[in-house]
Amino acid sequence: MTTNSSLISIQRSTDTKKKPPQDQLGFGIYYTDHMFVMDYSVGQGWHDPRIIPYQPLVLDPAAKVFHYGQTIFEGLKAYKTADDRIQLFRPRDNFQRMNRSNDRMSVPELDIDMAMAALEQLIAVDREWIPSLEGTSLYIRPFVIATQPTLGVAPSEHYQFIIIMSPVGAYYPEGINPVKIHVESDYVRAVPGGSGEAKTAGNYASALKSQQAAKEQGYTQVLWLDGKQHKYIEEVGSMNVFFKIGGTVYTPALTGSILHGITRDSVIRLLKHWGIPVEERMLAIDELYEAGRNGTLEEAFGTGTAAVISPIGEMNWNGEKLIIGEGKTGQLSKSVYDTLTGIQTGAVADPFGWTQQVEVIGK
Amino acid sequence: MTTNSSLISIQRSTDTKKKPPQDQLGFGIYYTDHMFVMDYSVGQGWHDPRIIPYQPLVLDPAAKVFHYGQTIFEGLKAYKTADDRIQLFRPRDNFQRMNRSNDRMSVPELDIDMAMAALEQLIAVDREWIPSLEGTSLYIRPFVIATQPTLGVAPSEHYQFIIIMSPVGAYYPEGINPVKIHVESDYVRAVPGGSGEAKTAGNYASALKSQQAAKEQGYTQVLWLDGKQHKYIEEVGSMNVFFKIGGTVYTPALTGSILHGITRDSVIRLLKHWGIPVEERMLAIDELYEAGRNGTLEEAFGTGTAAVISPIGEMNWNGEKLIIGEGKTGQLSKSVYDTLTGIQTGAVADPFGWTQQVEVIGK
Repeated sequence: MTTNSSLISIQRSTDTKKKPPQDQLGFGIYYTDHMFVMDYSVGQGWHDPRIIPYQPLVLDPAAKVFHYGQTIFEGLKAYKTADDRIQLFRPRDNFQRMNRSNDRMSVPELDIDMAMAALEQLIAVDREWIPSLEGTSLYIRPFVIATQPTLGVAPSEHYQFIIIMSPVGAYYPEGINPVKIHVESDYVRAVPGGSGEAKTAGNYASALKSQQAAKEQGYTQVLWLDGKQHKYIEEVGSMNVFFKIGGTVYTPALTGSILHGITRDSVIRLLKHWGIPVEERMLAIDELYEAGRNGTLEEAFGTGTAAVISPIGEMNWNGEKLIIGEGKTGQLSKSVYDTLTGIQTGAVADPFGWTQQVEVIGK
Repeated sequence: MTTNSSLISIQRSTDTKKKPPQDQLGFGIYYTDHMFVMDYSVGQGWHDPRIIPYQPLVLDPAAKVFHYGQTIFEGLKAYKTADDRIQLFRPRDNFQRMNRSNDRMSVPELDIDMAMAALEQLIAVDREWIPSLEGTSLYIRPFVIATQPTLGVAPSEHYQFIIIMSPVGAYYPEGINPVKIHVESDYVRAVPGGSGEAKTAGNYASALKSQQAAKEQGYTQVLWLDGKQHKYIEEVGSMNVFFKIGGTVYTPALTGSILHGITRDSVIRLLKHWGIPVEERMLAIDELYEAGRNGTLEEAFGTGTAAVISPIGEMNWNGEKLIIGEGKTGQLSKSVYDTLTGIQTGAVADPFGWTQQVEVIGK
C-alpha cells in the first residue's frame, strides 16, 4: 500500500453539473462532479486509486454486495469557514472506524493515510461544491462494496472503495427543534455478538420497518432497546443518545451492539471539558421513565454526523408518554450544538485538535 | 400488477456464451445467457418486465442497496429429468417467502404469478443451460435491490427485481459426506425482533467472520446458537438443522430468528409421511451434547437448497468434540437425501405435489 497521494490519477469531468440553490439542498440528493474509486483484489491488494467524473457503477448482477451484503460505509462532513478555508471534523476517526467495521464484516483493511489523501484530493477537485449558507455542509460518503460475481457464501475476493460527496442543507430544515421518539419494544436493532457496532448496510435495512411504523404514528425516530432483555437503552434512530438527569449526563456504554459515534465521543469530551459530569453506563428504560416522572430528567438528545445534535422533546414507551424539558430544546443541548457546529465551521476555537484544514494547492 | 406473461418482453442474446463442462461447474460461478429484470417505482408499482441478455447492472453509486442494504434474495433449482422434462421444486414457496422477507425489509410485495411467469419464461429461453449430469442442476437466484440514489435513511422509492441463473455441480463435489461443525459461542447470527427470518444480505455478511474462523480451524460450517442466551440451537451455516435422538427427529422451532427453510419443511413432511416422529422445539446445545454422551444421538444433518442434505459427523463446542454416528453418513440422512433429490430430478415419484413442470412451447 502507498500513502503517496501523487499516485492518485485524476480524470476531470468535462460536463460539470449545475449546482442546486443552497437553500434547497436537502440531504443526500445532489452529488458533486467527481468521485474517488479504488479497487481491491486478493493477491494484489488495494490498487488503481483514481478520481473520475461522478458516474454509475457497472457491476455484474452476481456481485456479492447484492446478495450477501458485504458493504461498509462512513459519513463525515467538510465545512466552508467564514474566511473561505475548508475544514474536516475528525476525518481519521471515520477511517479508523471504517477499518473496525471492515474487520467485523471480513472486508480488507484500508490504508488510512491513502484514504485521507484520496479524500483531500477529491475535496480539492470539487471544492466549489462546498456550500457556505448557515447549516449547510458537504456530506462525504466513503463506502466499500464486495464486487466478486460468485454466489458461494464466502468473503469476496474483489472490492471497490468509493467516495461520493453531496452538498447538504441543515438536517432539520426548521432548525434545531425537539423531535418525538417512539420506544421500540418489539423489533431489535442489534445484539452483542452481532454486527451492531459495524457501520454496515444490513443494520440500516433491518431498522426501516420499525422506523416506518413510528413515522406513521407521528414519531420522528425510534429508540432502540437492547436485543436480549428489551430493557436497556441503546441508540435513537441512527444516532447515539444522551440524557441529563439530576445534573449528570448519561449515555449508554459501548457494550458491543452500539455504534461508536464520533459525535458521541466529541460530546463526552466537550462535556468533561466544561466540567459537567458524564457517565457511560447501562441505562434502563424504566430508570429513565422514573427520572421523567420524578422530575430529575432535564434534557435528552441524539448525536450523529448528519444532525449533529437532535433534541428529544417527547418519548412514547408502550403508550406511556414522557415529555422532556417541557418539549423544548434544553440549554445544554443548545450549547453543545452551538459549540460543536461552531468548531466544525471554524466560528468557535477548537481546543481539541478535532478540525483539519484541507489544503488546496493552486487555489 | 399483471399476471399476463405475454407482457414480458424478450430480447435474445446474439452472443451466446460457451457452456462450461458439466463436471466442472462448481457453485454460482457461471451464468446463463439471459436474465430477467423488472422495475418498481412508488406510484407506478412493478413495471417493464423483460428478459434481456445477461449483462452488468448500471447503478448510481448512491443507490440505497450499497448503503442501507435493502435487498432480498431467494435460491431454488431447476432439474432436467431423465426423460428430458424440466422440473422446479416448490417454486411458489420461494416467492411466498420472498414476500415475507420483503415485508420485513420494507420492500414492496411481488405478484407471485408474475414472478412465476418470469421464472418459467427465463428457464424456457435458457433451457439449454440446464445440466443433466448426476448431482447438477440450474441454480436460480431471484433478488430485489433498492436503487433510489438518495442517502436519507428511508425505504427506497425504486427497486429492481432480477433473476439470474447458474448451472451448478454437486454442492460437495466429493458426494454426500459428513462435515465438521464448529459451535459458535461468541458471534450471533440473529435474535427475535431482528431480521434473521428474512433472506436478506445483511444476515449473510455478518455471519462471514465466524465462518472464516471456523474454516481456519478445519470446520466446514458454524452452528449458531440463539442470540439471547447462547444456549438454544438455531441453524447451521446457512442451513436448517435436524438431529435424530432416540428414534425421534428434532429440529429447532421457528421462534422468530430462524430461516423458514423450504427444504426444512419438505424434510419434516417426508419424515411424517414415513411415520418417523418429528418434533419442532427449542433444543439446547447441552441437551444435544448429553444425548451425544449417552449414546442416543444417532444422526445430525443440515438442510438447504444448495446442498439439500448435509450430514454432520463431528461437532466442537468450546473445545469439547462430539462424534456423531461414528462420523459416517446416517441411514436416515441418506434416505432423506436420496428421496428428496429423487423427487427433484423426477427419478422418484412425488406424492406431495412439490414438483412443477416447466412447459417449453415450441421446444
